[in-house]
Order: sequence, then structure tokens, then C-alpha cells
Amino acid sequence: MSDLRIAMAQINTCVGDIAGNRALILDRCRAAYALGAHLVAFPEMTTTGYPIEDLALRESFQRAAERSVTEIAQTLEAEGLGSLTVLLGTLGVNTEGRPFNQAVVIQHGSVSARYNKHHLPNYGVFDERRIFASGEDRCVIEANGVRVGLVICEDIWQDGGPVSQMDDADVQLLVVLNGSPFEEGKGHIRTELAQRRAAEVAAPVAYVNMWGGQDDLVFDGQSFIVGSDGRLLAAAPAFTDALIVWDVPRDDQTPPASEVTAPLSDDAKTYWACVTGLRDYVLKNGMSRVVLGLSGGIDSALVAAIAADALGGENVIGVSMPSKFSSDHSKSDAEVLAENIGADYRVQPIEPMVAVFESQLGLTGVAAENIQARVRGMILMGISNAEGVFALATGNKSELAVGYSTVYGDAVGAFAPIKDLDKTRVWDLSRWRNADAVARGETPPIPENSISKPPSAELRPGQVDQDSLPPYDLLDEVLDAYVEHAEGRAELLARGFDEYVVDKVLSLVDRAEWKRRQYPPGPKVTALAFGRDRRLPITSRWREKVES
Amino acid sequence: MSDLRIAMAQINTCVGDIAGNRALILDRCRAAYALGAHLVAFPEMTTTGYPIEDLALRESFQRAAERSVTEIAQTLEAEGLGSLTVLLGTLGVNTEGRPFNQAVVIQHGSVSARYNKHHLPNYGVFDERRIFASGEDRCVIEANGVRVGLVICEDIWQDGGPVSQMDDADVQLLVVLNGSPFEEGKGHIRTELAQRRAAEVAAPVAYVNMWGGQDDLVFDGQSFIVGSDGRLLAAAPAFTDALIVWDVPRDDQTPPASEVTAPLSDDAKTYWACVTGLRDYVLKNGMSRVVLGLSGGIDSALVAAIAADALGGENVIGVSMPSKFSSDHSKSDAEVLAENIGADYRVQPIEPMVAVFESQLGLTGVAAENIQARVRGMILMGISNAEGVFALATGNKSELAVGYSTVYGDAVGAFAPIKDLDKTRVWDLSRWRNADAVARGETPPIPENSISKPPSAELRPGQVDQDSLPPYDLLDEVLDAYVEHAEGRAELLARGFDEYVVDKVLSLVDRAEWKRRQYPPGPKVTALAFGRDRRLPITSRWREKVES
Repeated sequence: MSDLRIAMAQINTCVGDIAGNRALILDRCRAAYALGAHLVAFPEMTTTGYPIEDLALRESFQRAAERSVTEIAQTLEAEGLGSLTVLLGTLGVNTEGRPFNQAVVIQHGSVSARYNKHHLPNYGVFDERRIFASGEDRCVIEANGVRVGLVICEDIWQDGGPVSQMDDADVQLLVVLNGSPFEEGKGHIRTELAQRRAAEVAAPVAYVNMWGGQDDLVFDGQSFIVGSDGRLLAAAPAFTDALIVWDVPRDDQTPPASEVTAPLSDDAKTYWACVTGLRDYVLKNGMSRVVLGLSGGIDSALVAAIAADALGGENVIGVSMPSKFSSDHSKSDAEVLAENIGADYRVQPIEPMVAVFESQLGLTGVAAENIQARVRGMILMGISNAEGVFALATGNKSELAVGYSTVYGDAVGAFAPIKDLDKTRVWDLSRWRNADAVARGETPPIPENSISKPPSAELRPGQVDQDSLPPYDLLDEVLDAYVEHAEGRAELLARGFDEYVVDKVLSLVDRAEWKRRQYPPGPKVTALAFGRDRRLPITSRWREKVES
Repeated sequence: MSDLRIAMAQINTCVGDIAGNRALILDRCRAAYALGAHLVAFPEMTTTGYPIEDLALRESFQRAAERSVTEIAQTLEAEGLGSLTVLLGTLGVNTEGRPFNQAVVIQHGSVSARYNKHHLPNYGVFDERRIFASGEDRCVIEANGVRVGLVICEDIWQDGGPVSQMDDADVQLLVVLNGSPFEEGKGHIRTELAQRRAAEVAAPVAYVNMWGGQDDLVFDGQSFIVGSDGRLLAAAPAFTDALIVWDVPRDDQTPPASEVTAPLSDDAKTYWACVTGLRDYVLKNGMSRVVLGLSGGIDSALVAAIAADALGGENVIGVSMPSKFSSDHSKSDAEVLAENIGADYRVQPIEPMVAVFESQLGLTGVAAENIQARVRGMILMGISNAEGVFALATGNKSELAVGYSTVYGDAVGAFAPIKDLDKTRVWDLSRWRNADAVARGETPPIPENSISKPPSAELRPGQVDQDSLPPYDLLDEVLDAYVEHAEGRAELLARGFDEYVVDKVLSLVDRAEWKRRQYPPGPKVTALAFGRDRRLPITSRWREKVES
């Protein structure tokens, strides 16, 4: 027996879609009520979507969020669901007009309490001190006679703060509303944090996270409940809707376990993060189809597989754009891939366009190689414009790091699904995707040859990537240390990396910043993605080699 | 007679160029000493350049900055300049390794005091809470027996804080080290602020600002001194080096005036901001020449004039790229302009390339219009790659706002010098530049016809911009309210704008966010530029029309 049944509503909101988010919230309130829940908890900033960035500062938007909360409260009351306690993330405003990252408690047709997030993350991808004022008060409510503490996301990541203010509140449940973006390995950290806070308040912690893609972020869901003893009592799946119901035990009872979904493998999580990021970028922006170039190489093959999983193969246009330097296997690998995923496969030879540019402009060398890449970009954008589909860029993180791409060429696109996967991970996930297909009795989408052959841009005869770059396993190790761990040259040399390789890689990375700025967005899946996670000047004469 | 002669060193540092900045600092120390100065003050973060963004977090960079301070101190002492007091902005680190935005006081060969900026701007273009810890202590030093207070930039923009801590310090001079970016109308605000602080401490305030371009920011210099009575006692020119010497009066004396440079007109300041932004982007990135398309229209004409003023006409390649839709005046206006500024003028008809794309891809309508713009982009990038010059994008703020450009077409480039000028300002500054030439007895660079003819992209017969956009004077008014003042639909309608126009413009602006993200950087000159000044999600279903 329990006095309080809670439901965790793991949902996929859309930024700015106040009416759509409201409909989704009401739908889950009804479902929770039907399941006998007394309390339903939603993620961070549910009414508005998250993160809303500078939309938070717009008065018209603030008013709309507040109206939506009122409407939700009144609708629930009118439908006879007024007894349901609803914990809902939204956008609040203080008396000076400064926005709050806020949670409201809805009971009996109105807002009975408000909680404003204390700790505003202002690092990595987050800029919350830019837009929000900090809350100062704790929030403890009663639902069905049970004392429930309420905090928001970053509040549990910092020692001190609102959880430590709950010492004397004797809460029987702590609910955390989250908008916590996916990154590899983060799941464990969240669980450990929640376990620490559960021990601190001597009560179970319910961690409700959103899921879905939003520009360069992807949220994984994976909501869960841990007991005060650290035991995992409920766990929702990743990258999908969930409504998990759990009974808060009376003080003298052992906490019951609810659904505990087994976690996906690390490769699977990262793959589905890319799928989710792409799908939501396309669908939330009102599109349904994509076009990409299929070179026969591993990058475009993986992006095509991701796109097919996200949107259906029939919504993927794959274009082979051979030149006189393209090998036979490039064309056949591309065709096999397209067939495997059921894509709309097309062939557009680039020779006629390249020839007229080269002859009129008299270009040679890298300038001529770039013409090939840019003609391909123009063909993809032509299809994008004519058929109303998004073009995808297929560059990986290693290429993006060292600038191994042609701006306005292979870098064109609305979205870049694998921009945060280094080349080593591209191979990992391609093998994983194929193995997963085999395990499910399906045809592996990616041709084995695309995985095993040496990578080449095929912009001149016999070219392979390793002509101009260190081997990818070595390159990716150096990049991991320099980019993701922000180590300097001295630290890299101390770790035993070859001096020539270090200096070459660091110089390439530093000089490619301008290219990264004009690259399309794509989902962050690592601890440090290019983009707002790593903000460096373009104009910089800092060279590790010279002064570090 | 004065006990203290101070020198304000208004310099143009380069981000990351620790050795170059050090050489510049030492050079100005020697010059100040030669002028009899006892104290020389430099701008904010002089050793490192400013803003350094996440470079602040890199330990190798922190070490290099600290070494540079030591080297400066030791060099001055070794050269017999140890008696000179040097106030220098640099990068400090606290005991936990968190960076400070720091000022050091160098006297007699070592650092005699350190001050850490209290107020860290985290709005607009600034992200200082992301990278810096806040200082808490005030800093008052003695130089030649005179008590000098020291603060950094934002510290005087906030009431309370370090200046109010100086109540009992009886300072005889307050020195403010600044990295304050240019924006239209900001000069007056700075002077008024300094006057307020001067009254607060009952002493003169010396405001030392850096100048020069850094990616999307441009710093104007315009260092100055105001007396405790608010009188302007010294004023350095905008957008150039200055070393202004001033004698601090003894308590019983009237403050003397030093050089007071008359300010430029508003148009001149904004024009020179664009020139400085472009010149420093090119030169600091190790380039010297630029290429741009000359359409005969006003935007490319103004950019060409700016480029010629920044780099010399001989370093500007202007390419006329006529199509079958180009009018005769387009070609002749482009040619006259190129001749006026002494540019390297070239003609590359686009018809042969456009024809082969159109016939192979079978494109019509907007997709075909985009092909024309993208062929032009490819030609410019071909020249850029082959000759090692930067391509310039010529889009203005009005176009950028409503998405009136072709991504990977006219939007290509390393830098976009007029991206923060709306169309109305483009005309203003073109007229100003011509009038300025006349006043100096020179040939006006911009053909009168480019100023007076109706703007047209000439992508189809008889097309003019006003076919698809409201008249520019109206458009710019709506944009000013919606973008720069973040007003909502309700506020715009209340101001009397036509509902149809408002809804059309707002929708265009909201839908063009993805295009702006891939646009090149360019100098901020208004209170709110596109870019990190206005951070909005690409994926957003918020439409003012529906819910506001």
C-alpha cells in the first residue's frame, strides 16, 4: 500500500510549440490519472521546450508560457482531474521582468507553488546565467499527505544548494525535473548523483528527463528512480516516450521496484542519439525528406543508414556523383547501400560541370579539387531547393577537427548527423549497425567494402586520406587529448605522442576554426563537441608550438 | 606642477599573439617613459588580446600569459625603466586553477599588485562568467606618492562593486582598463558612466580602451579622461593608435586639459568600424588580399570601397559575373567602381556554367535562380583558393534578417563587412563616403547610379527586391523593432505597423535563422547584431502570429 503513486512523463517537446507541448502535457496527465497516479512529473521547461535560448527574454513568449500553465490547470480541473498534482517545467518571470527557469505545481485548477532553479549552468553548451535569474527558495509540497521536494536539473549537480536546504523538511520523495543532454558515459554519472542526493535527503529520488533532438543537442530520456539506499527502482528506456508509474512506500516499507529497462549498449545509445537528432531536426522543422551524396565511403554510408532509420529509406535521396577519379567500387558500393536501405538512388556525373569551371577559370591543384567537391554541393542543393528536402553533410569529427573538407562543397547541408563522431567511432557504429541487423535477421545496411577499404576523397588519382593525415587511430587519440581534454602541447608530448604529429595536428585544428563556424549543426554525443561547447576565436595567433 | 604624469596607451593587440603583444607593450612603455610619464595604463587583457573565449581555460595559454608579464617586468627593469608604473590587463589564475580577467601593476621589475575584475558581463556578445572567476578585492596603489584606484571595464557599468569600495581610499585618480566594443551611440554612454564614477570617487577617471578588429567585434579606442566635475580633459581618436599623456593635478589645482580629439560623425565612425573590422580580420589571419563579386549594386559597391580603404585598392579583386539577366548598367557601374578604387577588375560570365547545371539537373524557378548565385560563389571561391585571397560576402543586415540571400551562393566568404548595416545604413554610408571624398578633393568611389537605382538581385528579367520584400525604409523600421529591440507582434501592431507587413517580416526573420548560422562573421556595429548577440534556436515553432 502506498499513499502516493507517481508517474514520470518522459516526453519529447518542441521548442516554441506552446500549443503542441500543452496538448502533449494534457495527454500524459490524463494517461497518468487513468493509471491511478496522484502526481505526475514532467521534464524541465516542458511548456516551452528546451533550451529556448534568448526566446526567454521576449515578453510575448513569457506571456504565452504563463497563459499555457493557466490553461493546463483549468483544463485539468474542468475535466475532473483537479486532484492530480502536476509538476511542470516552464518559463517564469520575476518582479523585475527577469526570466526564471521555473517549475510549477498545479493542484485543483491552479498553481499552488513555484520553484525557481538555483544553479544555472553557464559552461559547455549552456548559457543559463545569460537569460535566467537564480532562485533562492527551496520547494517542498504535499501531495496526498506525502512530502515531496522539488528541484531542477543542475541543482543536483552542485553540492550545497536546494537539496542541502531540505535537511529539516523530512521529504519522502525528491523529484528532479531535467533537460539533460545526451553524451557518451553520462548515464552513470546521473545515477551516481541521484544516489548521493537520495542518501542526503534519506528518500527516493525520481529523475525525470526529456528526450528528443533540438538543433545540436539530443536528449536521451532514461528517466529513473533510485531509493535512499541507492537501489535502482525504475528506469525508462532511452530515446522514446515513457510514462513510468511507481508507488512511494510508506516509511516502514521496502521500496517496490517498477519497470527497469535494461540500458542499451554504448554503441547503440550513440547511434540512436544520431538518429534522434537527425529525425527531430527534420520533422520539427516541418520537413520529411533528405538528400545526401553517396560516395561509396564509410561516412556517407553511415549517414545514409542513420537517415533511413530516422525517416524511412523511402525518404532518403542518395546521389552518386562520380568524377573521372571515382573508382568502380565507389559507384557499386553506393548503389548497394542505397538498395539495402531502400533509398531513392540517383546518379549525377560531375564531369560536364567540372570541365566548364576548370576551363573557364584555369584552375589546378587544390583549387581544382575543391571545384569537384563544390559541384557536388551544388547538385545536392539543387535537389534540396527543387524538391523541398534537407541536404545532409556527411563529415565526421576527425575531418571537422583538421579541416579536411571543402567549405561550400562536401560541407553543405542543413544538418550534419555524424559531426561529433570521430572516424574511429564511425567505423565502430557502422560495424555495430550491421551486427545489429544480423542479430535481428535483417540485411546489414552498410557494404562490407565501405568499412574495410582505405578512406579516400577521390579528388585525384590514387589519393587516400593518409597521404595528408596521420593514421586515423593515431589522429583520433591526439584529437581526443587536444580537443576533448583541452591538453596543451607540453602535456601531449609528455604522454609520448610524436612531436611532428602533435605539431601538425594542433596546427591543422587551430587553422580550421573558420570552416567549423560555417558548418551545419549536428548532434553532440561526446563530452566536448565542436560548436557552442568549445568557443574559440577564429582570429588567433596562439600556436602551442611557439609559446606553450 | 604634477606629481604624476600618466600615459594612456591605446593599442591594437592580437588574440593569442603573446610575443607580438609583449613587443607592443614594451614599445609603448619606452615611449611613455620618454615622454616623462610615471605611469602607463594599457587596455583590458593586453598580454593575450581580447576576447580570448575558451583559450582562457587552457593551462598552456595561462602559463604563457603569466610568463609574458614576468618578462615585461624584467625587461623594463633591465632597461632602466623600473621606476615606471605599468597597469596591464592579462590572464590570471586563482588557486583552484580558475582564470581571472586580471590587471597587474608592474613596478621595479616585478608585479606589485593584482586586481581581478569583479563584474563579469554575461549578456550580449559576452560570456565572461563562462570562463572567469570574479574578483572580490579592490585595488588602490601608490605611484609617485599619488593614490590610484584600478578597475576593469564592466566594473564601472554596474552600480555598487569596486568603485563604491573606494569611498575611504581617497584616490586621486581612477584608472579603468577597457575592452569595450564599438556600437553606434556607445561613446556618450561611456563618457556619462565615467563622469558618474569620477563624481563618486571625487577624482579624475582615465578610461583606456583598446582598438582593432577581432572576428565579429571591433574596438574603437576613443580613450579619454574626465575630471571629477565631469569635464573632458583628454580624448584619443577612434580606430587608431594613441599615447596620451596627462598630468594629474595636485589637490589644490585645476585639472589641465590634454589632447582632446574631436569625435568623428556617427556615419564616419560606423564606416571606419567596418574598415577596421575587415582590415584586422584579413591581416591578423595572415592574408592581405580579398576578392568579391561586383554586381553594380550598392552593397557590393560599399563593401569594395571599405575593402579598398582597409587594404588598398590594389589588394581588392572585383569580379563582374554577368548573366543573361544582367542589365548593361550593372556591368558598367561595376567597372566604374573598380576603376575608382583601383581594384583588379575581372569579368567572368556565368552563362556557360549555369547552362550545364540547368540542363543536367532540369531546374527551374528559385532552384534555378540559386544556381546563378552559387556559380558566382564558386567562381569567387575558385579565385580565393587559387590565389590565396579571402572572399568577401556582401550581404547587408536587412537581407540577413529576412533570408534574402542564397546560402553557398552570394553568402560565401571568409568575412562579411556590412552584415550589421541595414539597407538604409548602406545607403547612408555610401553617400557619406562619397561626400567625404568630395570634401577631400578626391573622386567619390561609388557610382551615383549604384546609389540611386532600385535594388535588384537580377536573377530573372525585370526583378527588383521590392517584388518580394516591403520597401526598405519600412522593412528596416520593423526589423529595428523586432530584432534590435526584441519587441513582439503585439507591441509592433500597437506602434501602428500594418498587420500584413508585420506577420510577413516576422515569419521571414524566424525562418532564416539557419541561414544566418552558416553566414561568415562580420563586425558588430549596432546594439544588437546577428550572431552571439542574439542567440535563438534554429528549430523553433514559436510564431508570434499564433500565440503571442
